[in-house]
Amino acid sequence: MSESNLMLKRKGTMFIFSAPSGGGKSSVIKEILKNLDEIQLSVSVTTRQPREGEIEGKDYYFISEEEFARLVKRDELYEYVNSDFGPKYGTPKAPIEKLLDQGKDVILDLDFLGVQRLKTLAGDKVKAIALLPPSMKVLKERLVGRGTDALDVIERRMNMAEKRIRESAFYDYVIINDDLNKAVEEALAIIKAARVEKANICNLDSVINNIVKEI
Amino acid sequence: MSESNLMLKRKGTMFIFSAPSGGGKSSVIKEILKNLDEIQLSVSVTTRQPREGEIEGKDYYFISEEEFARLVKRDELYEYVNSDFGPKYGTPKAPIEKLLDQGKDVILDLDFLGVQRLKTLAGDKVKAIALLPPSMKVLKERLVGRGTDALDVIERRMNMAEKRIRESAFYDYVIINDDLNKAVEEALAIIKAARVEKANICNLDSVINNIVKEI
Repeated sequence: MSESNLMLKRKGTMFIFSAPSGGGKSSVIKEILKNLDEIQLSVSVTTRQPREGEIEGKDYYFISEEEFARLVKRDELYEYVNSDFGPKYGTPKAPIEKLLDQGKDVILDLDFLGVQRLKTLAGDKVKAIALLPPSMKVLKERLVGRGTDALDVIERRMNMAEKRIRESAFYDYVIINDDLNKAVEEALAIIKAARVEKANICNLDSVINNIVKEI
Repeated sequence: MSESNLMLKRKGTMFIFSAPSGGGKSSVIKEILKNLDEIQLSVSVTTRQPREGEIEGKDYYFISEEEFARLVKRDELYEYVNSDFGPKYGTPKAPIEKLLDQGKDVILDLDFLGVQRLKTLAGDKVKAIALLPPSMKVLKERLVGRGTDALDVIERRMNMAEKRIRESAFYDYVIINDDLNKAVEEALAIIKAARVEKANICNLDSVINNIVKEI
């Protein structure tokens, strides 16, 4: 028997992380990607121009308005933001499906609307994780501390934050990010557990047959 | 705001580990109990006499035939083995419910029949984990290696093993125990993930209210 017959093969899972700005989402995702193999960030399509240093297929798929309209029409986006003004953004199905079929997990960074759409479209492949700041005070300190936003932007983010925090009641998992290490450990546990979930294993029967027959 | 208002309170989960003899269940459970707080082994009731060194309430609850019959009649056992000959064994509901309500997890060691009963009675509180040996050859080596069983007992165990391995297709999680460290890590991930599952959190609304109001 070859070694590969023993390996459980699995379908990947989409892990959606949602958090208000300053919730520590980027740090948690960065640590996950550093600690785990076979997982990567979803790459969105956008109609805006690439900024300096942005790489096609890594930061975004940069597409035209016409291409975007075609993806929408053909139902090839899981979700999208289709504003009449400004650039459009969307989550393309094809590259994600390909990764999931290869047994790779995909991390998505979506808001509550996006989570709801993905849950409706692909509920059994999705785990939605809400990352909460320990308090609005800490959230504000983080936003001020990173020094990238003007005060009026911070105020706007704080107003948005309350809404996003309240929406966490509708997620599959809730992590309070009062300690980055703890939050990362909890996120890693969610991903590792999904990897041994029976529902995600494609070849259990043949693995069992191989275990049983060989003596 | 007191620190405790921030803490997520959760209901515990029952983790059922099933494996054929030699599947490495005891080693995995031992490592889990060593690595995690707020989790303990379920204590069964039995009508047999305590053996030397066995402690009431730790190894078993030692009860009379009459008490056992009363527990069955009052539906106070999750599952039981009620042989007419030999001692009876059962899983009492009350101590487990108490632990779960305190936010503690409980590990149970049951066969497939027990898993099915618990799933039917308390499905949302149960995660069933099948631990598989990498092969029957390894299983046999382990059974022979531990040197506690006569050869005919080992043969009987091997015959049972095939049935148990095939049943793993009906569990929530499947772990192949070809490397104890990896198996333990996967088991720990399942338990840690369940601890941040939204469905298990009792006080999310009040935690959210506390996060949002404090600024």
